[in-house]
Parts: sequence; structure tokens; C-alpha cells
Amino acid sequence: MPPRDQHTDGASGSAAQPLRSDAERNRERIVAAARTVFGRDGLNASMASVAREAGVGIATMFRRFPDKEELVAAVFTDRMDAYVRATEEALAEPDPWRGFAGYVETVCAMQAADRGFADVLTMSLPGAERLEARRAEAYEGFLELIARAKDSGDLREDFTSRDLVLLLMANAGVLSATADAAPDAWRRPVAWMLQSFRTPARGPLPDPPEDAALYQAMRRAGPGLASTESGERH
Amino acid sequence: MPPRDQHTDGASGSAAQPLRSDAERNRERIVAAARTVFGRDGLNASMASVAREAGVGIATMFRRFPDKEELVAAVFTDRMDAYVRATEEALAEPDPWRGFAGYVETVCAMQAADRGFADVLTMSLPGAERLEARRAEAYEGFLELIARAKDSGDLREDFTSRDLVLLLMANAGVLSATADAAPDAWRRPVAWMLQSFRTPARGPLPDPPEDAALYQAMRRAGPGLASTESGERH
Repeated sequence: MPPRDQHTDGASGSAAQPLRSDAERNRERIVAAARTVFGRDGLNASMASVAREAGVGIATMFRRFPDKEELVAAVFTDRMDAYVRATEEALAEPDPWRGFAGYVETVCAMQAADRGFADVLTMSLPGAERLEARRAEAYEGFLELIARAKDSGDLREDFTSRDLVLLLMANAGVLSATADAAPDAWRRPVAWMLQSFRTPARGPLPDPPEDAALYQAMRRAGPGLASTESGERH
Repeated sequence: MPPRDQHTDGASGSAAQPLRSDAERNRERIVAAARTVFGRDGLNASMASVAREAGVGIATMFRRFPDKEELVAAVFTDRMDAYVRATEEALAEPDPWRGFAGYVETVCAMQAADRGFADVLTMSLPGAERLEARRAEAYEGFLELIARAKDSGDLREDFTSRDLVLLLMANAGVLSATADAAPDAWRRPVAWMLQSFRTPARGPLPDPPEDAALYQAMRRAGPGLASTESGERH
């Protein structure tokens, strides 16, 4: 992306805001729209639906973001920063197990808060270099969390960093099926998995969703006509 | 659906096969195509993509199956029958825990074998009455499996039948992200969950996927341009 566009990303101060070109305004508008659309529909949302949400033409869209990965990077860089901070905070926790388990829960909560970011966390985006660099930093921190929790005898020895990816994929499955209807449903499966990671005893579990909420969730995850048809209509 | 079409559903004997009308041939062709498309892409696959696979026009498609749920029912009734048989077989297993855990694994393996069925298992399809009736039968059997495994002291008391739905949603998330690249990746998270359901000790875990396979999986679950664009192209 051109460097002169970068200041449009930040929530910059009001007073000395420079006059912005149409191109810059369009870029801002597209990023804001993508934040909404990806957050709601995940990264499978089409570039066309982002353009519609932004109220710009598809040509403008592709002029500003020739590549979906660039758009994803522009939208999720700040969340990726928060993801890195979460490892730092977890490492500052003196208890190794609490650091480890708290981190896993925090990341799962970040997935729950943003479906697009849930996708980002279980994807590789080689075209988005800055974002991948941050992911690599977070990964290093997570390796340290694993090592600490194994050294203290809390985390089972066969746990690997790849297991976090599997857990996040599982969480994404629960989230995409339950999202609006049972927004806390993911906490229970995540608790199962954390309990099975721990070497000795088990704690209590969060409650499962109500029948009615779960039924709603099953409807929401239904034949997918809504998303498919709206995709075809345009 | 018109009753006279029903015999085209079975893999009927060869000799006395009646002459079939165009309508019947189209119906067969559509069901076969939907089996392929849903199995590969899940139930979010559009009716249009099924029509393309079947080589019939969209009008013909909607004449035979005015409603996606009817098509889903036609495709998955036999798998739902197998799902019911799985509870019966699990109840025939004398060891309550083996019956319970084996059933959970069998259902997860059925998800792994067919992405469309993976969707069916975590969805409610009120329009597909026969299929829902079979699901209700399987549910009754599963309640019995739960009760047996709790009575024997193997299954934690706070396990509920809703937990199977959560587990299947989690499994669907792993499957949809890892499918071709790491087709056995789902076994490890399912093992975590089963271990956390069990009252005392834990067994060994299946290996996690190789780094390379998991990377492939992350690419496959990437920005989803392929599916979105093919949906919009037509």
C-alpha cells in the first residue's frame, strides 16, 4: 500500500487533519466497510459485498485494494497487535497455567468478537507481510507460554503449538454455528479442551446454552440459503 | 414430492426397471449431483451449482425441488438411516463407556466423510420431515447411551445431549478448515473432548497433523476467494 495512505488508518486527532483526496476517503470508507462485513460474515465475504457496503464501485474497490489479502491486512492489523499484546500479558502472569489457559481463553474471545478475525487466526496470509510478522511474534510468545506451563507440570507433555490452531478451528466451528443465537456457547467446548490439556484435576464447566438458544443456533446454521442467495442476487 | 417419483430413490434391481420419464431421470440426476456438490462444499452450496453439476437448467431444478430442504432430505435420508443404526450398534456394546465414546467417534467420522452431512448433523431442517423423524430416533438412542455411561460412573454428570451438538459444531469447524490438507486432524480435538467427558483417567492422543499438512490446511481455509468468486461468476 502507498505510504501516504497510512495516516488514514489511525483514529487521528481532529484539529490538524489534512485535506484528504478522494482516493484516501475511498480507502478509509472501504476499510471501515470491510471491518463490518468481515466481522459479520467472515473472510469469505466477497470483495463485491464490501464495495456495496462502502458505497463504492467495484473498480474503485480493486484500484485501492487489488488483492483481498491487502484489505484483510488493513482491517486486522490492530487486532493482530492486540493478539501480540495478549501473549505479553499472559507471560506477565506469574502462574504458568493461568497464563497459558488465560491466553487461550482470550484468543477464543477475540474470535468470538469478530468472525473475520476468527478466520484470520486460522489462516495464513502470505501476501499480508506486516500481519504475518505480528502473528510470528505472537507465536514466539505462545511457545514460551507452553514451555512455562510444561515446566511447572501443569500442561500435558504432548501438547504442541499446532494444538492451538486445532482448538481455534474447533472454536470457529462453534462460533459460526452459534454466533447470534447462543453467543457464549463456545465457552463450554473451550473449557473441555483446556481441562483435557491440564495434567491432573478438572474444574467446573460453564453452562451449556438453553435448548431454545441452541435451536436458534441450528436454524441460523441452516441450509445457508440467505448468504448463498444474496451472493447470487447481485 | 410426488409419490410416483419415490421408487427412483432406491438402488432398485436391474431386471424389471420401469421406463422412466424425463422428470424422473432429471430427479435422479439432480440427487446424484447434489450428493457430490453437498459432500464437497457443504449445504451452503447453491441450488445453481447443483443444477450445473447435474447438467439441468435452473427451472428444471426448481420444478423437481422447489425447496432446498427437500433436496437435502432426498440426498441424506440414507445417511440419516446409518446415523440411527449407529446408536443401535452403540447400545449393543456391553461396555457403557465404549458404547458412548464409540458412538461419538462414529458420528464424527460420518461428518468427516461428508461435508454436507456434517452440516446436516448440526442443523435443523423442519421442512424435511422424514429426516427429522430419523434424527429424533437417533436422539432417543443417544439419551440412552448417556444414561448408561452415567450410571456406570464413566461419564461426567454435567454432560448433556446438547453437548454432542456443540462437539459436532466444533468438529465441523476443524473439518471445514483441514479437510483435504489434513483429513485426520479432527481426531485429536475429538479425543480431547472425549477425555474431558470421562470421569477419571486419560488415554493417549492421536498425533497432531504435520506442520506441512497444517500449513496446507491453513491455505485451504484461506480468504475463500475461490468459492465466493465462482458463486458470483454465474
